[in-house]
Amino acid sequence: MSPRISDQQKEQRRMQILGAAKLVFTAKGYEAATFTDILEETGMSRGWIYLYFQTKEEIFEALLDQQDLEYEAYIAELMSAHPLVWDVIRQMYADQQAELLQMPGRSFLPAFYEYFLTGARDERRRSLLLKRYETGIARFAALLNTGVERGEFRPLLPLAQLARITASFQEGIMSHTLAVGPELAQTEFQIHALLDYLDQLLKPGHRPAAE
Amino acid sequence: MSPRISDQQKEQRRMQILGAAKLVFTAKGYEAATFTDILEETGMSRGWIYLYFQTKEEIFEALLDQQDLEYEAYIAELMSAHPLVWDVIRQMYADQQAELLQMPGRSFLPAFYEYFLTGARDERRRSLLLKRYETGIARFAALLNTGVERGEFRPLLPLAQLARITASFQEGIMSHTLAVGPELAQTEFQIHALLDYLDQLLKPGHRPAAE
Repeated sequence: MSPRISDQQKEQRRMQILGAAKLVFTAKGYEAATFTDILEETGMSRGWIYLYFQTKEEIFEALLDQQDLEYEAYIAELMSAHPLVWDVIRQMYADQQAELLQMPGRSFLPAFYEYFLTGARDERRRSLLLKRYETGIARFAALLNTGVERGEFRPLLPLAQLARITASFQEGIMSHTLAVGPELAQTEFQIHALLDYLDQLLKPGHRPAAE
Repeated sequence: MSPRISDQQKEQRRMQILGAAKLVFTAKGYEAATFTDILEETGMSRGWIYLYFQTKEEIFEALLDQQDLEYEAYIAELMSAHPLVWDVIRQMYADQQAELLQMPGRSFLPAFYEYFLTGARDERRRSLLLKRYETGIARFAALLNTGVERGEFRPLLPLAQLARITASFQEGIMSHTLAVGPELAQTEFQIHALLDYLDQLLKPGHRPAAE
């Protein structure tokens, strides 16, 4: 808002705050983290940060939006790198797996769960969660639909249902990895099983390697 | 501890406290619920409840143990009611589905998640969660093994892996039902898909009805 900084600088500072917030939420979870923790992590003065955000909750929600933008860019990048939608999906799961294998301790996910769980009775958070779920399902169904249009997939189930099944399975793998670690949860094997299952749902008749 | 009450009365009072605690945790979640809330729900005096439990955490963990006992009795009952292990499994999922269709608002699960998430950095809670995971997987693998021994199932995967896959998928369905409700999550359809998938993992060659 100050006339002395350019829009670019302003955006840079905003990203700096979100980056610091992600570190803090990853280290402490949502409830235990404070606005002051984030402020200290940025190294800015309190006055500066208030130009951008008034509460911890505002920062958290901006961080979610930021991650959505990054995810969309990531998918677009995969789509331009891989001619086959199936290869895009395989890469998505490979990347997801790599992230899960670093758990616990280096993930933002616990803070994410905590935010929505502790706010389960908060109308605003509930509707935010609902919107995120619907967007996620729609995004994956659209990706699958591209594969259908290109003649790659011949699913027997409606894509929205197929996307829900996949999302649940993936969610459970994440939860269990978070809970007991990738080794005990056999995360690598489970991601492989999920991919086999999806293969079979998308390309009936073509049996996955596991069988 | 008082000589005036019998062991049976003592156990009854303990169950009364746990029942009240379950209502409170279901209504408020874990963090928001207080020892006093539970005390008030029981209608007992503070002195009475202290004969059994000192903290909210103690009550919560006793409630988890109690639920495990009930679950074991439930499985034993199903096993004696159904000659086929597959029918036991189908009944388990049907019951699970019935519970999920009541969500949100009438489930103890959010408190469960909250307890372990907010305690993710607490060694005691982490090891409790680990033990619960291992017990759950081992219990389901043992059930599947009974089916193998009886010649009902011919799984291609080791049962411990198969149990993990199933547990993740189920966990994800629960999480999503909790998050967005059974209608939007299409919980009924998803439980059906999980059962089809399990059928196919346990009885290769025998294609489930959906295909």
